Amino acid sequence: MRAIVTYPPTGGLELVNVPQEAGNGVLVRTLYTGICGTDKELVLGRLKFARPQKGHALILGHEALGRVVDPGDSGSFKNGDLVVPMVRRPGGCRMCRMGRQDYCEDGDFVEAGIRGKDGFMRDEFFEEENFLVKVDESTIGKLAVLTEPLKNAMKIREIFRFMESRVKWNCDDSTLECRNIYVFGTGTEGLLISSVFKTMGMNVIAVNRHPLDEGIISFLDRNGIGYLDTSSETLESRVKREKMDAAVDAVGAMDVFKGITDNIQRNGIVILFGTNGQLPSSQYDIIGEIVDKNLSICGSVDGAKIHYNEAVEFIENYGKRFGLESIITGVYEPEDLDIFTKKEKGEIKKVIKWS
Amino acid sequence: MRAIVTYPPTGGLELVNVPQEAGNGVLVRTLYTGICGTDKELVLGRLKFARPQKGHALILGHEALGRVVDPGDSGSFKNGDLVVPMVRRPGGCRMCRMGRQDYCEDGDFVEAGIRGKDGFMRDEFFEEENFLVKVDESTIGKLAVLTEPLKNAMKIREIFRFMESRVKWNCDDSTLECRNIYVFGTGTEGLLISSVFKTMGMNVIAVNRHPLDEGIISFLDRNGIGYLDTSSETLESRVKREKMDAAVDAVGAMDVFKGITDNIQRNGIVILFGTNGQLPSSQYDIIGEIVDKNLSICGSVDGAKIHYNEAVEFIENYGKRFGLESIITGVYEPEDLDIFTKKEKGEIKKVIKWS
Amino acid sequence: MRAIVTYPPTGGLELVNVPQEAGNGVLVRTLYTGICGTDKELVLGRLKFARPQKGHALILGHEALGRVVDPGDSGSFKNGDLVVPMVRRPGGCRMCRMGRQDYCEDGDFVEAGIRGKDGFMRDEFFEEENFLVKVDESTIGKLAVLTEPLKNAMKIREIFRFMESRVKWNCDDSTLECRNIYVFGTGTEGLLISSVFKTMGMNVIAVNRHPLDEGIISFLDRNGIGYLDTSSETLESRVKREKMDAAVDAVGAMDVFKGITDNIQRNGIVILFGTNGQLPSSQYDIIGEIVDKNLSICGSVDGAKIHYNEAVEFIENYGKRFGLESIITGVYEPEDLDIFTKKEKGEIKKVIKWS
Amino acid sequence: MRAIVTYPPTGGLELVNVPQEAGNGVLVRTLYTGICGTDKELVLGRLKFARPQKGHALILGHEALGRVVDPGDSGSFKNGDLVVPMVRRPGGCRMCRMGRQDYCEDGDFVEAGIRGKDGFMRDEFFEEENFLVKVDESTIGKLAVLTEPLKNAMKIREIFRFMESRVKWNCDDSTLECRNIYVFGTGTEGLLISSVFKTMGMNVIAVNRHPLDEGIISFLDRNGIGYLDTSSETLESRVKREKMDAAVDAVGAMDVFKGITDNIQRNGIVILFGTNGQLPSSQYDIIGEIVDKNLSICGSVDGAKIHYNEAVEFIENYGKRFGLESIITGVYEPEDLDIFTKKEKGEIKKVIKWS
Repeated sequence: MRAIVTYPPTGGLELVNVPQEAGNGVLVRTLYTGICGTDKELVLGRLKFARPQKGHALILGHEALGRVVDPGDSGSFKNGDLVVPMVRRPGGCRMCRMGRQDYCEDGDFVEAGIRGKDGFMRDEFFEEENFLVKVDESTIGKLAVLTEPLKNAMKIREIFRFMESRVKWNCDDSTLECRNIYVFGTGTEGLLISSVFKTMGMNVIAVNRHPLDEGIISFLDRNGIGYLDTSSETLESRVKREKMDAAVDAVGAMDVFKGITDNIQRNGIVILFGTNGQLPSSQYDIIGEIVDKNLSICGSVDGAKIHYNEAVEFIENYGKRFGLESIITGVYEPEDLDIFTKKEKGEIKKVIKWS
Repeated sequence: MRAIVTYPPTGGLELVNVPQEAGNGVLVRTLYTGICGTDKELVLGRLKFARPQKGHALILGHEALGRVVDPGDSGSFKNGDLVVPMVRRPGGCRMCRMGRQDYCEDGDFVEAGIRGKDGFMRDEFFEEENFLVKVDESTIGKLAVLTEPLKNAMKIREIFRFMESRVKWNCDDSTLECRNIYVFGTGTEGLLISSVFKTMGMNVIAVNRHPLDEGIISFLDRNGIGYLDTSSETLESRVKREKMDAAVDAVGAMDVFKGITDNIQRNGIVILFGTNGQLPSSQYDIIGEIVDKNLSICGSVDGAKIHYNEAVEFIENYGKRFGLESIITGVYEPEDLDIFTKKEKGEIKKVIKWS
Repeated sequence: MRAIVTYPPTGGLELVNVPQEAGNGVLVRTLYTGICGTDKELVLGRLKFARPQKGHALILGHEALGRVVDPGDSGSFKNGDLVVPMVRRPGGCRMCRMGRQDYCEDGDFVEAGIRGKDGFMRDEFFEEENFLVKVDESTIGKLAVLTEPLKNAMKIREIFRFMESRVKWNCDDSTLECRNIYVFGTGTEGLLISSVFKTMGMNVIAVNRHPLDEGIISFLDRNGIGYLDTSSETLESRVKREKMDAAVDAVGAMDVFKGITDNIQRNGIVILFGTNGQLPSSQYDIIGEIVDKNLSICGSVDGAKIHYNEAVEFIENYGKRFGLESIITGVYEPEDLDIFTKKEKGEIKKVIKWS
Repeated sequence: MRAIVTYPPTGGLELVNVPQEAGNGVLVRTLYTGICGTDKELVLGRLKFARPQKGHALILGHEALGRVVDPGDSGSFKNGDLVVPMVRRPGGCRMCRMGRQDYCEDGDFVEAGIRGKDGFMRDEFFEEENFLVKVDESTIGKLAVLTEPLKNAMKIREIFRFMESRVKWNCDDSTLECRNIYVFGTGTEGLLISSVFKTMGMNVIAVNRHPLDEGIISFLDRNGIGYLDTSSETLESRVKREKMDAAVDAVGAMDVFKGITDNIQRNGIVILFGTNGQLPSSQYDIIGEIVDKNLSICGSVDGAKIHYNEAVEFIENYGKRFGLESIITGVYEPEDLDIFTKKEKGEIKKVIKWS
């Protein structure tokens, strides 16, 4: 069968033929796989923690949607079920044993398509049923390929709900309608995070340091999400009109972090999700603002099975209403390898169609 | 009566004679006032937010212990009561109305001896009874001058207890005995914070970038608190022997913050308390570690009345056992103005005796 | 205009003509009002706290859906908007000032159609815009009349999420799929609560002491909710097959409460919502089980604006999927006053169509 | 060596000679053991869950203080250390594996001196070091025999702190000084619970249904704890003067529970700790009050190692200040078996001195 591989840590990219595995568990035929920044960095050899499952090649792909073609001994799945596989697999620590490998204590986990485990960019794969999430309504179709990136937004929501209890956060009418949250980054993650917070009843402002593509503006307008291009208006200026009560960062650059701590309100909640080793750092002193304003800052990585479930639910509830299909800006064949290195105009999320 | 004043924002320092106020509330005779870094920065004209209550001069002093000499109409106090006055006074925001001016939402507060309100470095002052904290046992005597700096540690403890719920934090025997917390800074705040976490059952390591004075080593040894001088052993090396599960920073420098995020365990809790505009910042990228390790970082400033009460209780319970009197390294007269600018060998906390 | 009134505390029921009010705020034309147990008890003169707004008559009706016919000065509403009015209106206590009159501290509130404020069973009413909840999608139509009863389920969910943190509650795969919750009562509230917990990923069992009507069975089957008729199988027997991890009571009888405490698992969560002064109490000792099993029991009454918003969102997301329209078992005219006293076969929720 | 045994489930009481065990772990010489209601019920054959470790006899005693006479391989203890052994020992469930056997999910635990494990009423016993709590200051001496009953109060405090977050609970000055908590029961547990809440800054009222003994009144007076004898003044009358914001029940009778739910304020917190199968139950309907007042009711049984540690700390801090020694009203010899069945005038806690 076909598989797209890279050679960590060097990188590289190849469509190869690999023998059918003889495996256990549920046999899944891949329908779609998504490509994200992590895939591109793997191909460029920039991810230090990347490593193959065995040998030298690592099959890429951690965002996937497939169809069960042989449930094996599984009691939970049957032929034809739509499924999304999980990325991170637990090690032996306490948090992993509780199903919270996203909070793994010792780093002893593997991640499909990233480190220590082959990914889903291949025609078929065997999977343990515990790591498959059922997509109940076949009507949501290829949108379910967004489940994996969306599960990150669901974990961010979980953290946010927790942090709301540190200091009285709700408005004086009990809602969150008086609250503004700035979401930095307008790629797939940024748009999904913005959408999730919008459904929590907050006023959301999506921020980019460059002018936004038309497709993105149209997505934001449709969903009542504001936006800010900091090359046109500074954050300092914008927060005078719309105070920043909370922020989620999906960019990962220190200048964005500094912009947040400088401009956020007292008692503000900040969730950091993006990482980007390539962006320049500079000389920043952010401590004074963090202390004097009693800020709460939480890092968030990955998500647990419950967040995959919530992501599927979210797509079922809001996929059509929010027009999430407009996030998928291109559908390609496995042979189109140049999509890993070229960036199309208006590109948000590219997916590969396998069958 | 005597009063020590400065002239914000320029700074300066003078012992002056001011007329007795004719005031309302409880009349308090000052016994002791403590001097801290904030006072020194006020005198040097380095605190931008410093401002007088009226006119040009601001009476210094936010750490104080006094004795009631006229309770006025107060139902809660009587002549002879030992009292500690609070520093920050509420404005009109929601948090202030709940007695949580330490979480003031709009910055509309005043702070005695710092901004907008005269402080306690004078022979007597009138005070509203709501802002006086009774010191029940006269036996704790001048130690109560530590109530104000200690209340900050109590708020830090409150935040810490909250953050413990984000991810399972307790050891597998339900205690915190397997947990190491690094407290950066070995001045008064650092030592008090270290003491408080010690009483929570954690293993505490006090950190300084310079060799520690004998008096401090003796205080730490006595109380079973470890220490690290990073000019002798790097943090990187130390955490290999004693992992860092949590950290409190009482220094306020970016290199310390970076050292924490680089070296702390996954799911670590970080509380930032110190601010120091004078320390050099450099090029730091801390985001990757915050995200990948799911760190929780909270700023903490000031404390509420409940934290003053807890501080008094802490001194009553642990003052003798922990030998907190060794933190007070010098008792001076109001006339000894050079104590604001000179640093003694072995100095931790200097206090002025008023009567 | 027409209005349905009762005469607290005596009760009684009459369709009367009342003059158009001359009022402030948003003028709303009533579309539908729902009837619930509280209305029937008001009519029977069984609610001691019932009282008119002024005079002797109280206009009934606290479950309503209307259309804005004159927005007045409101900036938030325009002609034609679908709206649901809130029931309880804040007094002056702290919780009321925070928009949490559902947690009113001193009882100084009024409730439309119940105590101290006329309700919505009339052709039109004026309402302050703060107490109107917009129903965004006109497609959900008359289903929105379920917003008011559903907001109670949303508050119950809020309490449940809080109580989950007392003792580790999630399954070892991070989801709630291993958890069974028993919901007592299969009236409107019971069915809505069951639906809400179903969407949280729990296994839900709806319980009644009598055989269930076909319409209810069909609703439950459609939505994958189990059920138990305790006249056919005892609770004791059922929990041997499906352990009870949590319970919500929408009945309000002591024997149900005792059945829950006897049969629930250790560390169980119980939320009490129903009250029914008419059901016989008996000799019950439930303390031993509450203590030995570390049970958590929370009463829940009413809900805040955020719960109304969440209810609207829930109907938009799940109204069709769950077939919530089958809960509305009868649509009547204001003149059909006997619906307050007669119970139809298969009746769940009756609504009155006003225009 | 001597040992006091009973024969579950029949009961009975005997001082017997048992051979020295040949065991592993730390060898502890018993100094003091306390007697509580559970011991008396065991002797009367009233505890259904009582069972011997092996054979027919169960050595009594779960409240103990001892001295290490042979530390074995233990790295944590040395000869002469004062230690308190824990009562409940974990089974295999998740909570037990986290050291929270007090929240055991499946009931698969044993309790020394109660069920499945011999207790400490013998001259010596071997103990695993994990289940021994060190008493740091020998100065607290025999007071440490109160550690075991006091650890229950510490778990209650843990639950209370959690429940405080459901609804805004602190006073408008951030403290708990405006809050009244009623503690039902003035035996050892009641007095210890009252003491713990007093140190949290609340106004505490201890309640008994009979006139209080002089010794108890004197203890309460000394510590600023109010009291109520409901045979002299009804609860209804008292709460008009001092509202009930929270309650802890250490009695275990339904009429007390009903008195609490009837008389407590809205949003009240109730913690149930006492169980007493012997007290008569009656016809009670408490649901309406629980619902309408949004009450939070938590059962609490046992405590974890962290609560033993906190109890030791509490005795060190407050033992002398609160005069806890007055709770120990009698010291007896192992031969004085009639202390299990006779009740002395003024009796609170009896202890047996072993060496």
